[in-house]
Amino acid sequence: MTNQASDPIGIFDSGVGGLTVASAVRQLIPERSIVYFGDTAHLPYGDKSPGAILHYSKKITDFLLDHNCKIILAACNTVSATVWDELNLYISGRAVPVNVIDPVVKRVGELYSGLSIGVIGTKNTINSGAYTKKIKEIIPGAKVSSLATPLMVPMIEEGFVYDDISNAIIRAYLSNSTLEGIQTLILGCTHYPIIRNQIRKYYDFKVDVVDSALIVAEHVRSLIDSLLPAGSIAGSVSHSLPGYPDKVDGTGGPLNAGRDKFFVSDYTEYFSKIAGIFFEKEIILEKVDLWR
Amino acid sequence: MTNQASDPIGIFDSGVGGLTVASAVRQLIPERSIVYFGDTAHLPYGDKSPGAILHYSKKITDFLLDHNCKIILAACNTVSATVWDELNLYISGRAVPVNVIDPVVKRVGELYSGLSIGVIGTKNTINSGAYTKKIKEIIPGAKVSSLATPLMVPMIEEGFVYDDISNAIIRAYLSNSTLEGIQTLILGCTHYPIIRNQIRKYYDFKVDVVDSALIVAEHVRSLIDSLLPAGSIAGSVSHSLPGYPDKVDGTGGPLNAGRDKFFVSDYTEYFSKIAGIFFEKEIILEKVDLWR
Repeated sequence: MTNQASDPIGIFDSGVGGLTVASAVRQLIPERSIVYFGDTAHLPYGDKSPGAILHYSKKITDFLLDHNCKIILAACNTVSATVWDELNLYISGRAVPVNVIDPVVKRVGELYSGLSIGVIGTKNTINSGAYTKKIKEIIPGAKVSSLATPLMVPMIEEGFVYDDISNAIIRAYLSNSTLEGIQTLILGCTHYPIIRNQIRKYYDFKVDVVDSALIVAEHVRSLIDSLLPAGSIAGSVSHSLPGYPDKVDGTGGPLNAGRDKFFVSDYTEYFSKIAGIFFEKEIILEKVDLWR
Repeated sequence: MTNQASDPIGIFDSGVGGLTVASAVRQLIPERSIVYFGDTAHLPYGDKSPGAILHYSKKITDFLLDHNCKIILAACNTVSATVWDELNLYISGRAVPVNVIDPVVKRVGELYSGLSIGVIGTKNTINSGAYTKKIKEIIPGAKVSSLATPLMVPMIEEGFVYDDISNAIIRAYLSNSTLEGIQTLILGCTHYPIIRNQIRKYYDFKVDVVDSALIVAEHVRSLIDSLLPAGSIAGSVSHSLPGYPDKVDGTGGPLNAGRDKFFVSDYTEYFSKIAGIFFEKEIILEKVDLWR
């Protein structure tokens, strides 16, 4: 398994939420192109069965491998929480598997050991108990409280953010006694970074709200640096971070950024519109149906 | 194409919302069994592409035909609004195709001609313009105002009904100037009957909120009566309606009710739980995957 600066990073999610992670990867790893796959035909994964989720994830993995990705990042908490052991095995040996939970748990273990930790996410993510289990492996006596907050994804997708309705929904969920007394909160869903500041405000900025997208991108950054031979071009670029390099490649964009590819399994105008919101930049979605 | 009392009625939807229609069919047509298919693997259809929706609908049609259904009811407004012409052709000759829009538009034409009519539904349903077009075919000068209210489906599915949050969301949508002055409102989504009374209350009970599920079931009832030979057993049972007959068949339930079958393309506990809410009776979901 080679890992060269020309190998794109494969990122996938059930839909467009994973673009918050892709956006962070785009900023921290400018020399690599991204191949993104959003399984919009099966979105959302949050209430699908593990069997179905694994089946979809394997098919997407094959697609990303066909696109020469040597790092495959499951930018979906549901995938990371429910079928990771099987998917990890499936990817390993052909690419480096990365999920969105392990890097965050590691960072939380470093920064928030001893604090009371809260986690919110989809039903599948929370019911799997993955965050709690993994945090307790790192911090054995940790106090972890988790709560499913399923209406937040459609709320964000429908544009109900930073308004009365989203404030009411956020309050309804976060005032649940389960989360009482938490000192840090993990956003266990790639949609939630969009409302991170609104959640911080709900807590009057007294609770640390963990930016998972950034942590995962930093993990991929260090992974690439450790995998690449010393002195390679990409390696030297990486050392100039966190400043965002202005170097351009032949495409006219910052290094490989212009070569990013964004695929979806079902295309609508709507996905196209909200994709730009999540990636914080207008992008072109290409439809590819893996299931017909 | 025969139509005998032993032929089940095939009903399908993207998920469990169509069970509100199935529930009305169950009450008005006690002598027929139901074969229900909820495409939970692809739920929701509300923001999928027409191509994908037609592909799914045809596959489900084949499944229902295999189960000997001679009436196939698309209990999904998105299907009825976006791909009906093609699906109608696909079903015709093998079963009687029924959608959830035409019977409602016909009834609205009879009852509300001359009034200002509102329609709410998913993005696909509203953007298709199907309700407006069909109402204007029946009432040429009709004033029709329609609005997409996409957060209502997940809101209902997450149990936010008859509370502050759902009141705020209902208010946010229905106070839109588009719907100003309407005198009757069509609920263009099979989820919405669950909050019909809450919507009536929003309007202080001064706007007629059309119960589409009941109207569609009445249409199927009259269809069966007109198709069956006079004097047949099922025909005579039907004439005892609207009183719910107490006759039982060999299964111990009211006539064929105990033989109803409910299939889903992906099974979770969650679907199982909310299915009971929509059908107003606990039911067993069987998983059958048409797409692997």
